[in-house]
Amino acid sequence: MDTDDRAPGRPRSAEADAAILDAALDLLIERGAEATSIEQVARRAGVTRATVYRRFPDKVSLLIATVEAAYGDPPPTPDIVDVEHLLAGWASVLADPRLRRLLRRLYGAIEDFPDVARAYQGSLGDQRDQARREVFRRARDLGQFPADTDPDVLLDLLTGAGWQHLAVHPDTCAVEDAERFLRAVLHQAGYRPGGHRRAEEE
Amino acid sequence: MDTDDRAPGRPRSAEADAAILDAALDLLIERGAEATSIEQVARRAGVTRATVYRRFPDKVSLLIATVEAAYGDPPPTPDIVDVEHLLAGWASVLADPRLRRLLRRLYGAIEDFPDVARAYQGSLGDQRDQARREVFRRARDLGQFPADTDPDVLLDLLTGAGWQHLAVHPDTCAVEDAERFLRAVLHQAGYRPGGHRRAEEE
Repeated sequence: MDTDDRAPGRPRSAEADAAILDAALDLLIERGAEATSIEQVARRAGVTRATVYRRFPDKVSLLIATVEAAYGDPPPTPDIVDVEHLLAGWASVLADPRLRRLLRRLYGAIEDFPDVARAYQGSLGDQRDQARREVFRRARDLGQFPADTDPDVLLDLLTGAGWQHLAVHPDTCAVEDAERFLRAVLHQAGYRPGGHRRAEEE
Repeated sequence: MDTDDRAPGRPRSAEADAAILDAALDLLIERGAEATSIEQVARRAGVTRATVYRRFPDKVSLLIATVEAAYGDPPPTPDIVDVEHLLAGWASVLADPRLRRLLRRLYGAIEDFPDVARAYQGSLGDQRDQARREVFRRARDLGQFPADTDPDVLLDLLTGAGWQHLAVHPDTCAVEDAERFLRAVLHQAGYRPGGHRRAEEE
């Protein structure tokens, strides 16, 4: 079993780490957490199962590390300058077929692999969400949202719109279409780039 | 194999239908579409695999019928009188742990079992969405939403908020908390039960 993996050319330690995480990410996206096995990861990475198990005691640990690595570990510090910047960033995610599938897989993992779903939230989501709330707070204070706007509600609303887009729009969606979708949602949520007060004064 | 299923007391045809669909719904909720098998459904329903296969050629057909049956086939005609009624209905769904899990399973099925996910949308969602858009349109015309409100955007926004609630709130969420969440989202989207024009006139 796995005799090919022991052939010359088998990746060394750091290469094996990367090959394992790459293979696990591919399988998570293609098949989901439930259908991914350590055996498949080892085969695709070109290593033995023992090589995988030396690094990760079980599938859940491996998938958590995979999600963390996919988003950078530690993830880059978000630096979102304003709502337009935030919109452009989300639109580029919603227009990336591979990220779309990964995000749906992470949603699908909530039920049986909550720690894998949380790995995304913990490694990337929390920090980025904090930056997003700050952007919404500043935009509200600049008059781009109604004065009674709650940044938490706005974040839930926009995140939810993202889940809905992932659920009903094709993965071949153009970045312009994704941005138009998100912009329509934010407009309904009271976003006026030119400012509410200014619009009333004019 | 399956000798117990052939024992006296085995359900007859209509009973077998119901037992199979009940068992499949339980398994879909507990394990998801990927991990559910015809064999498990047969065992839980107390019938032979042949009994299941006589009715459904494969797992996907069985799961589609299961989702359709869960929502009534044909589903009851929705009769939503206004936004408050719609809010109360959604809040009761978001406060039902079994429906929460089913909806997450249906989202999780989008990737590998799109026809199962679509069965929900087709058998229930489309018709109900039409009624929801109509409620939003009337509410807008009554001045409960801003005049430039797009019912489609509002529906995406509220549906998305539902996905977000299912993703981040505990399944023990009280109906009052679910309603508060949805109401905050609708408020951000410009919902004013007393009317926008009236508020401006006062």
